[in-house]
Amino acid sequence: MSNPHRTITLPDPLPLDSGQVLAGVEIAYETYGTLNADKSNAILVCHALTGDQYLASTHPITGKPGWWERMVGPGLPIDTDRYHVICANVIGSCMGSTGPASLAPDGAPYGMRFPVITIRDMVRGLVGLLDGLGIGTLHAVVGGSMGGMQALSLAANFPDRAARVLAIATTARHSAQNIAFHEVGRQAIMADPDWREGDYYADGKAPDAGLAVARMAAHITYLSEEGLTEKFGRRLQDRSEKTFGFDADFQVESYLRYQGSGFTRRFDANSYLYITRAMDYFDIAEEHAKDANEGKLADAFAGSRARFCLVSFDSDWLYPTAESRHVVHALNAAGAPVSFVELSAPFGHDSFLLDVPALDRVVKGFLDG
Amino acid sequence: MSNPHRTITLPDPLPLDSGQVLAGVEIAYETYGTLNADKSNAILVCHALTGDQYLASTHPITGKPGWWERMVGPGLPIDTDRYHVICANVIGSCMGSTGPASLAPDGAPYGMRFPVITIRDMVRGLVGLLDGLGIGTLHAVVGGSMGGMQALSLAANFPDRAARVLAIATTARHSAQNIAFHEVGRQAIMADPDWREGDYYADGKAPDAGLAVARMAAHITYLSEEGLTEKFGRRLQDRSEKTFGFDADFQVESYLRYQGSGFTRRFDANSYLYITRAMDYFDIAEEHAKDANEGKLADAFAGSRARFCLVSFDSDWLYPTAESRHVVHALNAAGAPVSFVELSAPFGHDSFLLDVPALDRVVKGFLDG
Repeated sequence: MSNPHRTITLPDPLPLDSGQVLAGVEIAYETYGTLNADKSNAILVCHALTGDQYLASTHPITGKPGWWERMVGPGLPIDTDRYHVICANVIGSCMGSTGPASLAPDGAPYGMRFPVITIRDMVRGLVGLLDGLGIGTLHAVVGGSMGGMQALSLAANFPDRAARVLAIATTARHSAQNIAFHEVGRQAIMADPDWREGDYYADGKAPDAGLAVARMAAHITYLSEEGLTEKFGRRLQDRSEKTFGFDADFQVESYLRYQGSGFTRRFDANSYLYITRAMDYFDIAEEHAKDANEGKLADAFAGSRARFCLVSFDSDWLYPTAESRHVVHALNAAGAPVSFVELSAPFGHDSFLLDVPALDRVVKGFLDG
Repeated sequence: MSNPHRTITLPDPLPLDSGQVLAGVEIAYETYGTLNADKSNAILVCHALTGDQYLASTHPITGKPGWWERMVGPGLPIDTDRYHVICANVIGSCMGSTGPASLAPDGAPYGMRFPVITIRDMVRGLVGLLDGLGIGTLHAVVGGSMGGMQALSLAANFPDRAARVLAIATTARHSAQNIAFHEVGRQAIMADPDWREGDYYADGKAPDAGLAVARMAAHITYLSEEGLTEKFGRRLQDRSEKTFGFDADFQVESYLRYQGSGFTRRFDANSYLYITRAMDYFDIAEEHAKDANEGKLADAFAGSRARFCLVSFDSDWLYPTAESRHVVHALNAAGAPVSFVELSAPFGHDSFLLDVPALDRVVKGFLDG
């Protein structure tokens, strides 16, 4: 079913929001299900910050199942018997698409010479892929978290490219608190002496300690306080008494350390810097402002003829329901058809990746409707 | 009014929860106002994680005003015309009381040889100070955040030592999320090569980068999402356009970096490890459990004859109102007189330190009543 490990090289240099251009851009992608004759059944799924194109197939590094296997497959809510599902690694990332670890024209890795990109630049890369595949208008663009930002950005900037836009657990702009958490992560990476201004690719010693701390801090924001209490509480890890030391006495400490160290095996620290920066810069209203001090989100969606669906989770404190509602109000003001639901789920922001049957029903209903 | 820079050496070794003892313990403290003849007007104020004894007098390192000058002084809610106010640096800290930077009996700094301490151990040190000052029963013990933990611990473990207990923006136990944020901070410090297993005092090069990251992560938890949005939003720092780089483009980034680097000038990284550990171990119910699997918080307060007052803030997501309510229910069950108020304030956990006139009224009313 899966058509694995494909890469396309964009024929034209990619213009970026910074004013720079990126030449020879490669986009690595996976597809699932069959494209129909008139190419009208394609769904583009956009991945989150640390996600990748291995949506519904085994991750080549970790050997783990795809990150949305519960959602994408034959007979599943995003039904690959019906749809041709595409998922591509975003530019700036590290799973095959062009990013800071890629070779620059001079033959050495970009490192911090890689241009700072935006969510819209990532979407430009994805549209380049669609052009390459000969797909005009998607049946739908779908994404959660940063994937939802891409879905909204595609709707705002390329209004003819998707008939349906499904944005889950996301926002149209990064808040001060969102930026603050990302800045902690970046500072953790940059404080690691092994980061060496991003020039660490040659000898194989990467800033893993800093990247692990960044991941740990971020990971807390993906979970709810209630979820953490339920999952771990104050339970001790493989011991009956506190040790009065600095080992991971508590299960939650052990879990976080495991999350941090596991992450460094599959992710590039410079990519983490670039992608968090892109998310922090994200503000669709500002992008579409007619002057610097005035940006109305509704203006961004004025040209859209797509149908929208927004989903939030009541326990998500990273991109809380108010952020989705803000988008919905803008879409209403723009006259776009939009449905919106806040789902109750205990897992915090990560709910979009986890077992929430109500989400399955919403996704299927919106895509098939 | 202030009687500055005093230190007492406890005559007896301090027994610790770990089973170890700490000999030659020094407690550095400040006092404000005059102790009356029968020593019945003393109020002990307990400081928070990164606080110190400079409650209402200039900090000797930063030159900044005391951390609660708005609350403590002549005619203020904690009225030094009326009360003798004592504030001592907790053991494990670094402003004059015995901690990891102090010299061990072998003449070298303790570093990580310092025993892991608990909130109750800190309170034992404070009670040693009261003994040394000849103060039997305090008019009140008062504290916010970790200071509130000490106030509750004193009430539970030394029920005769305080007639009133005022605990603000605090909890009777550290949650999984609380532990998780502290663990990120500890890992950031320990990942700094300059930490060197805590043995960094000799050559003056401390793990400042790691400590700054720890402080940045923690600082986010002290503020509310709304407060951050109001204070910073997405406003840029001294520039009119995004730079498409990794400088602190946003005001919130600049603020956090400033908080992080400023902190390293006044605080010892090992103290940060030890004090966060003490907070994570904090669970009054567990401390007073008759067996390992059963601890009822009410049992901890069964012997108390003090009056209690609990205050929470609606925007505090670090120690939310539910945690205070949990303590109030336990005090009710123990038959202790308790008043409880949730105040509305926009500043998150830090509200207890900031301009919240309603807090002033509650504090004055409770202490003078």
